[in-house]
Amino acid sequence: MFKIGVMIDKMFEDVEYSEPAKAFKEAGHELTILGKQKTEVTGKKGKETVQIEEKISDSDYNKFDAIFIPGGCSPDNLRSEPEPVEFIRNFYKTGKPIFAICHAPQLLITAQLIEGKKITGWKSIVQDIKNAGGQYIDQEVVEDGNIISSRQPSDIPAFISACLKKLE
Amino acid sequence: MFKIGVMIDKMFEDVEYSEPAKAFKEAGHELTILGKQKTEVTGKKGKETVQIEEKISDSDYNKFDAIFIPGGCSPDNLRSEPEPVEFIRNFYKTGKPIFAICHAPQLLITAQLIEGKKITGWKSIVQDIKNAGGQYIDQEVVEDGNIISSRQPSDIPAFISACLKKLE
Repeated sequence: MFKIGVMIDKMFEDVEYSEPAKAFKEAGHELTILGKQKTEVTGKKGKETVQIEEKISDSDYNKFDAIFIPGGCSPDNLRSEPEPVEFIRNFYKTGKPIFAICHAPQLLITAQLIEGKKITGWKSIVQDIKNAGGQYIDQEVVEDGNIISSRQPSDIPAFISACLKKLE
Repeated sequence: MFKIGVMIDKMFEDVEYSEPAKAFKEAGHELTILGKQKTEVTGKKGKETVQIEEKISDSDYNKFDAIFIPGGCSPDNLRSEPEPVEFIRNFYKTGKPIFAICHAPQLLITAQLIEGKKITGWKSIVQDIKNAGGQYIDQEVVEDGNIISSRQPSDIPAFISACLKKLE
């Protein structure tokens, strides 16, 4: 059983949180919901509401075995403040896995973590990934070092499978 | 009187559309609402709903004297398809003004238009602007060549003023 921190903010892509979260819990892992404030946040489709359990600025990245970043507008909301950027930058240095789907690479770009990395993401951010020095690959899951990335909701089954395998 | 094309999609930042649009009309300019489909689109705050008048893929960029791109999640939605990217790239070549606020530089980044340009935008996209070769400047209005840019809703009065001056 591993401890997974979920970095999330309002307007997340509902299924990109709910489906991996369900699968990770069913596999016996423990999730902690991390956000900018201890409030509820709702997905952009209005289907999922999540309670933030820990403020990122008060949380210790060292206690997590992996970080999961759902997509939607949530990663862009997170990176508008310095604390989430600093948190993921520090976590990255531990070498533990980061699970990033859809717009999640936006947070990694602002933290300057993808230069030279093979990575995928939602089609709107392809140029941002390339400009950041990342090697964009158009496939359902890309794994390079400690970063596992996927593009979109239809990639979720493959994303879950790769993330769970990384935790074995 | 000038013809201004407004490039917009769902989840735009309500006031970043409504306030400049009102000011442009009051100054005697004619607005045409351009989008991916001829549907209604609603702002992220739910306060403004706008009818798309022309599909970008059917529209002729040559007939516009200026293009206005409101912020919010709208620019990222627009750049997920090739037609809006192609449209703004072609319009840029005419040398006519582009008014870009908040997240609007995202569309310009994907169209590869900001290299070497002084530009501003919403704080979450600062690293994307820099990675694209833009010179990010943290002030309420930045004008470089045919691009006028602003950061956020509080910059709207200065943004409107600079845009209207450009059209004199």
